[in-house]
Amino acid sequence: MSKYDIIVLGSGPGGYVTAIRASQLGFKTAIVEKENLGGVCLNWGCIPTKALLKSAQVFEYLKHADDYGLTVKEFDKDFGAVVKRSRGVADGMSKGIQFLMKKNKIDVIKGYGTLKAGKKIDVDGTEYSADHIIVATGARSRELPNLPQDGKKVIGYREAMTLPTQPKKMIVVGSGAIGVEFAYFYNSMGTDVTIVEYLPNVVPVEDEDVSKQLERSFKKIGINVMTSAEVTTIDTSGEGVKATVKTAKGEEVLEADIILSAVGIKTNIENIGLEDVGIAVDRDKILVNDFYQTNVPGYYAIGDVTPGQALAHVASAEGILCVEKIAGMHVEPIDYGNIPGCTYASPEIASVGLTEKQAKEKGYELKIGKFPFSASGKASAAGNKDGFVKVIFDAKYGEWLGCHMIGAGVTDMIAEAVLGRKLETTGHEVLKTIHPHPTMSEAVMEAVAAAYDEVIHI
Amino acid sequence: MSKYDIIVLGSGPGGYVTAIRASQLGFKTAIVEKENLGGVCLNWGCIPTKALLKSAQVFEYLKHADDYGLTVKEFDKDFGAVVKRSRGVADGMSKGIQFLMKKNKIDVIKGYGTLKAGKKIDVDGTEYSADHIIVATGARSRELPNLPQDGKKVIGYREAMTLPTQPKKMIVVGSGAIGVEFAYFYNSMGTDVTIVEYLPNVVPVEDEDVSKQLERSFKKIGINVMTSAEVTTIDTSGEGVKATVKTAKGEEVLEADIILSAVGIKTNIENIGLEDVGIAVDRDKILVNDFYQTNVPGYYAIGDVTPGQALAHVASAEGILCVEKIAGMHVEPIDYGNIPGCTYASPEIASVGLTEKQAKEKGYELKIGKFPFSASGKASAAGNKDGFVKVIFDAKYGEWLGCHMIGAGVTDMIAEAVLGRKLETTGHEVLKTIHPHPTMSEAVMEAVAAAYDEVIHI
Repeated sequence: MSKYDIIVLGSGPGGYVTAIRASQLGFKTAIVEKENLGGVCLNWGCIPTKALLKSAQVFEYLKHADDYGLTVKEFDKDFGAVVKRSRGVADGMSKGIQFLMKKNKIDVIKGYGTLKAGKKIDVDGTEYSADHIIVATGARSRELPNLPQDGKKVIGYREAMTLPTQPKKMIVVGSGAIGVEFAYFYNSMGTDVTIVEYLPNVVPVEDEDVSKQLERSFKKIGINVMTSAEVTTIDTSGEGVKATVKTAKGEEVLEADIILSAVGIKTNIENIGLEDVGIAVDRDKILVNDFYQTNVPGYYAIGDVTPGQALAHVASAEGILCVEKIAGMHVEPIDYGNIPGCTYASPEIASVGLTEKQAKEKGYELKIGKFPFSASGKASAAGNKDGFVKVIFDAKYGEWLGCHMIGAGVTDMIAEAVLGRKLETTGHEVLKTIHPHPTMSEAVMEAVAAAYDEVIHI
Repeated sequence: MSKYDIIVLGSGPGGYVTAIRASQLGFKTAIVEKENLGGVCLNWGCIPTKALLKSAQVFEYLKHADDYGLTVKEFDKDFGAVVKRSRGVADGMSKGIQFLMKKNKIDVIKGYGTLKAGKKIDVDGTEYSADHIIVATGARSRELPNLPQDGKKVIGYREAMTLPTQPKKMIVVGSGAIGVEFAYFYNSMGTDVTIVEYLPNVVPVEDEDVSKQLERSFKKIGINVMTSAEVTTIDTSGEGVKATVKTAKGEEVLEADIILSAVGIKTNIENIGLEDVGIAVDRDKILVNDFYQTNVPGYYAIGDVTPGQALAHVASAEGILCVEKIAGMHVEPIDYGNIPGCTYASPEIASVGLTEKQAKEKGYELKIGKFPFSASGKASAAGNKDGFVKVIFDAKYGEWLGCHMIGAGVTDMIAEAVLGRKLETTGHEVLKTIHPHPTMSEAVMEAVAAAYDEVIHI
């Protein structure tokens, strides 16, 4: 029986990063994967969706070329080629992970792993043991009882990424990051898209101002947005699918070729041996301490299966911390209040910290500043005037409570706020940090200036 | 004679920002401008060039649409329309400054201002006085003796922005930000472009790795790059212009329609009354203290006319600081070692702090990390794999000495490094700042990890 220092179960951005860091720290490491290296993020999530969205972005430029002094006579998308490109990117990245496993001397064990007592893992009948076993099995698309996925007419994100033909009409149920990104992509490609969101706002975890802006932007490009709305029943008996949607105004029947169910995720904690080992779970999550130890010594869990935000970058950070702790390094627990979240439609959304509503509920007195990209020189030059940066400070002690961005390129701008908050910056320090002109990033400085009544360009 | 608290001479990004901040602080403020509000930056620099470059970016997408699964049958640029869009953006921004002047109750005095003793300014024959006079007259394109600009065949940035017809062949002398941006723009539009750089590297103020990468990227798209090369004579007697270029290999005669001279700037310090008032200058610059006071009480200078970096964002920051000091606020001098610089061609360049060479010359022991975008998932998905992030730390005390980026969107990413350096972050803190996945900004975290042998994705 092969013996390792560390075995990681699952090779998503939690698992493979954990394995690399473990190997760097000198542990003999193996990783178990039943499918493709890289997990959902790399093969069916973050990466291939960004490839699809890039095609959509370029397609938008083709549609609006005359805005930039350019002329395009005849143009079209090749839906199959767009999907093929996305798959190619995912495949390339997965091969990259293979390379990294090899380079870091990590054994890749292909197959379905199940935890066993005594710090063992069974992989399709072969047993492996380790001093430390780290569960990183991730999550999948959640199914609603009244919206069972058949993979054809009612689909999850996975199928949405590789549809053989482009639907003419699509209903997207749920408007978190996944729903919003696909809604944008399919709308851009020419599909007639309706978003059905149960809560009063789209992207409901975001600051309300961001939600409102996204709704405006989406409506402007022809996406039909229904909020406080619920799909009560569906009928797939005909050629397409009929969805009965309940809103405050009553019931309405929508017809479409396809319904994309994007109502969150369900963790992969079934049939991996948690019960046999006696690992404690609470509903959908494995219970862990600050360093990702479960209640059973030698067993750890990181990523979507644990209570922190179900995001790739959280999973990676948790995995790194977990093995650094095992290695005896002095490590600080992750501050789950300082995790950025991003949505990559157009406009993009990026945020970190408390929303205005959350901050008020916590009883803070607030200093809030907002700078619209319509007042930014770079945004004007680039034709990206939609959106804004909004910053929230505690009026009393000056703590940067939250930062909320919507607009072109903001997913690459939020890191400044995350680092600033980690370093406990004051607004004044951000204000006196000279941001290059002309950039979109100036909007952060100006939003802070607005919070302190020193804004220049509005 | 009208009396003000503060009069600002010049309405570029130094002057107009100074005036706004002065007015916010309760000063009765006027601004003197001989041409358009916004100065060079807004009318002939930062902003309209970014508009041209956006058209180039979109044109590149048209050329490479099939990379993204899209088809374009027939397309072209309309050079006149591209220029017209750029002018429209500049005009819109200039009107925006008009609005800001009005909103902030700043008197705009149109005309040519000359300083007079006794804290007065003469504007075309009318005198105005103020308690504080701030010179913000900026700079213009520098002329080389052997490259006199005739505005037709040998031009500066201003003419390059509004050429009536697109040149077939162009020589760009100098490869600082201005030269590089125009070289990229015209190459993208289809002009045959040769860059002639006197120094051994293009973008010579940047880290050498960045220069090398840009040279590779530019050669790949067909820009002819000559370094360690000098235009010794030009002959404009024929239809176009002939330039004799001296290199290590000998002399070569290049022919072109137009030569763009982009060899730096010359400050506008002549004929504005400095001598009459007795304001001290050193060569091309007005001498000022940390708070922009000249040697003559009541007279100040900010922006390109002073010794700091000649950049719009520096001018703005200097102006704000200058009036805050006048208002009696407690202010800290600007740290000129923490000023970001950006170049907006493709790939973009952004940097702050010391280059590797500078850091070595200063005697530091270094920890250097570099992360190529070829290893970034987001870069792969977006088709932006050229470039990297390079970070330089002091090995002894962990100070973040420099950050150098080249790649798509990096001009919006450098703010993180500027803020981090301002807050005296350590590499470890950047490393433990969770960057969102998948973004280009992860490359900063990974580059820092590389410096400390903890990099995951390479």
